[in-house]
Amino acid sequence: MASKEVIEPLLPTSSNTIGTRILDIPRSKGRLRRTKSAPHADSPHSETTGTGTGADTCPVPRSGFIFGNLGPSLRRVALVLILYMGIGTLCFYLVRYQIRGEKTNGIVDAIYFTIVTMTTVGYGDLVPNSPSTKLLACAFVFSGMALVGLILSSAADYLVEKQEILLFKTLNAHQNGHCDMTKEIDTDKARNKCIVVFLLLILFIISGTVFLVTIEKLGFIDAFYCVCSTITTLGYGDKSFSTKSGRIFAIFWILISTITLAQFFLYIAELNTERRQKSLVKWVLSKKVTNLDLEAADLDNDRVVGAAEFVIHKLKEMGKITEDDIAPVLKEFEKLDVDQSGTLSTSDLTLAQSS
Amino acid sequence: MASKEVIEPLLPTSSNTIGTRILDIPRSKGRLRRTKSAPHADSPHSETTGTGTGADTCPVPRSGFIFGNLGPSLRRVALVLILYMGIGTLCFYLVRYQIRGEKTNGIVDAIYFTIVTMTTVGYGDLVPNSPSTKLLACAFVFSGMALVGLILSSAADYLVEKQEILLFKTLNAHQNGHCDMTKEIDTDKARNKCIVVFLLLILFIISGTVFLVTIEKLGFIDAFYCVCSTITTLGYGDKSFSTKSGRIFAIFWILISTITLAQFFLYIAELNTERRQKSLVKWVLSKKVTNLDLEAADLDNDRVVGAAEFVIHKLKEMGKITEDDIAPVLKEFEKLDVDQSGTLSTSDLTLAQSS
Repeated sequence: MASKEVIEPLLPTSSNTIGTRILDIPRSKGRLRRTKSAPHADSPHSETTGTGTGADTCPVPRSGFIFGNLGPSLRRVALVLILYMGIGTLCFYLVRYQIRGEKTNGIVDAIYFTIVTMTTVGYGDLVPNSPSTKLLACAFVFSGMALVGLILSSAADYLVEKQEILLFKTLNAHQNGHCDMTKEIDTDKARNKCIVVFLLLILFIISGTVFLVTIEKLGFIDAFYCVCSTITTLGYGDKSFSTKSGRIFAIFWILISTITLAQFFLYIAELNTERRQKSLVKWVLSKKVTNLDLEAADLDNDRVVGAAEFVIHKLKEMGKITEDDIAPVLKEFEKLDVDQSGTLSTSDLTLAQSS
Repeated sequence: MASKEVIEPLLPTSSNTIGTRILDIPRSKGRLRRTKSAPHADSPHSETTGTGTGADTCPVPRSGFIFGNLGPSLRRVALVLILYMGIGTLCFYLVRYQIRGEKTNGIVDAIYFTIVTMTTVGYGDLVPNSPSTKLLACAFVFSGMALVGLILSSAADYLVEKQEILLFKTLNAHQNGHCDMTKEIDTDKARNKCIVVFLLLILFIISGTVFLVTIEKLGFIDAFYCVCSTITTLGYGDKSFSTKSGRIFAIFWILISTITLAQFFLYIAELNTERRQKSLVKWVLSKKVTNLDLEAADLDNDRVVGAAEFVIHKLKEMGKITEDDIAPVLKEFEKLDVDQSGTLSTSDLTLAQSS
């Protein structure tokens, strides 16, 4: 469910920014040191795009691709959701006499049934009562699951990042300047996202419980039980939304709260991965470099290991890259290195691109 | 939910293997070319561990960490599952008179109710009928969701890989040798896993439908509808397992089939990510290298770009690594480069480790 979107135009921009940055630095032997000491200032995104601030720090590489197409991705998800809801409502409204159970308003029930099916809550307070309606429900639950996956993989993450920035901006309001806030977010991205989603979840649990107590006239325990049963998509169905206003509330509340809980579990998993990755990085960096390591790292076989070779070796040890990531790039390098000097220069490029 | 496990001892082994391999290659200017032309033979895992065969090829870096601790992870998941089921069964057996609905055998119903709750199917054929039982069910559904996430993140992936190897071994039985099979699996890991899980899913749908028709005496459409309603965890509850033998079957079938469907959606997402990553890699490699790229890639500022520098630059463009991955390694490099020559040699190591 954690498939992240990639948009290509981002990358040339990113590399150009880095290129410009490096050109600004005076050319001396000490440049390597500069690049090292200022990793945060280096990030081309931290100042320009608010939502992409932490993506560079995130040790889970898949997340690194999020910030590119949040706009279009969100629009696409919203469009698919509207389309799904529209078709669902129309279908279940047309077959409303083949659905049995507690009825309120025709349209409201159709939307409510679509949401309850899509999120796999499946209370059973409304159930299909004819073979064709049953098959229709089957089709909608499968596509609903896929749609929830789509929402989780792009839209939810985007919205949480937005809220995260808002929250930490408020919390850091006493500090002056945007930069501090950005750094704060950078330091522990996954943890902050967990906190934000957890707070949202508490909010939805409270609002759902209060609503069920006041509007649906349930007891407190029953209301809380119905809320838990709903957000986990358990949906035993002994307690559900049975009034018209209850179902109108449920349409929005069920969609948002079930997705928030799923997102919460995803972030917990991401947090675990991040922690594990961080400790792995620490371990790889602290372990003793042996002569065997030097030999392994010596890519161009000049008997010494340059900074770049060392970086590749260590990133391989960290599992961030593999032989198979490197091989095609080396092939490309060989193609460009026309004079076979083992290095690329401007003349190589001119030769390679003219031939 | 896609949090993958990392075990540390794997990595030194991996790097040592690479070290040994490079030592075997005659030291000449042409060595770079050799490394490039044989990426598959390079993989230290492809011959030794059956389950890890494709992990090096997988463009989704998170999956690269799976193969390390499948054994312990699987055992841990099995242990947690048994513990959860044991406590669940005991609790719901003790409060069996506070659960209303269609009853069969006390123990069977307790296990069945635990499974129906844990997987969030929640038919509602058995529902808690007292405040304490309702709160108990709430506790079990939350922990059940976490447990399903745990199963999805480790055990299910492991079992699918096992089955994948079995399947493709059978399909490739006419080809001689283990190596061909390994290569076949390597070429399109995510697609193969999708196929395997899809076939399993079909198997579970058919077996569930047949069982419901023969044992629970449902009509074909109703049986299929109940199967769909169950594996998606929708569980309207108008059709469910109501006999003792039906529930014994359901205990195993619900757990396996719901996890298989969730895993199927996860693999579809992984497949999409993989395809997108592949096209991004292709695009980054095919795009024209400019002088600006050369300047950006020139990490050690010697006015030429070595193979390793080129690799880092391109991997950064692909989004596989970021500045923040590189910065701490460069810091470590600087610490080791005692004579500040810009390269690491045996003498650097001796100096750095004696001080």
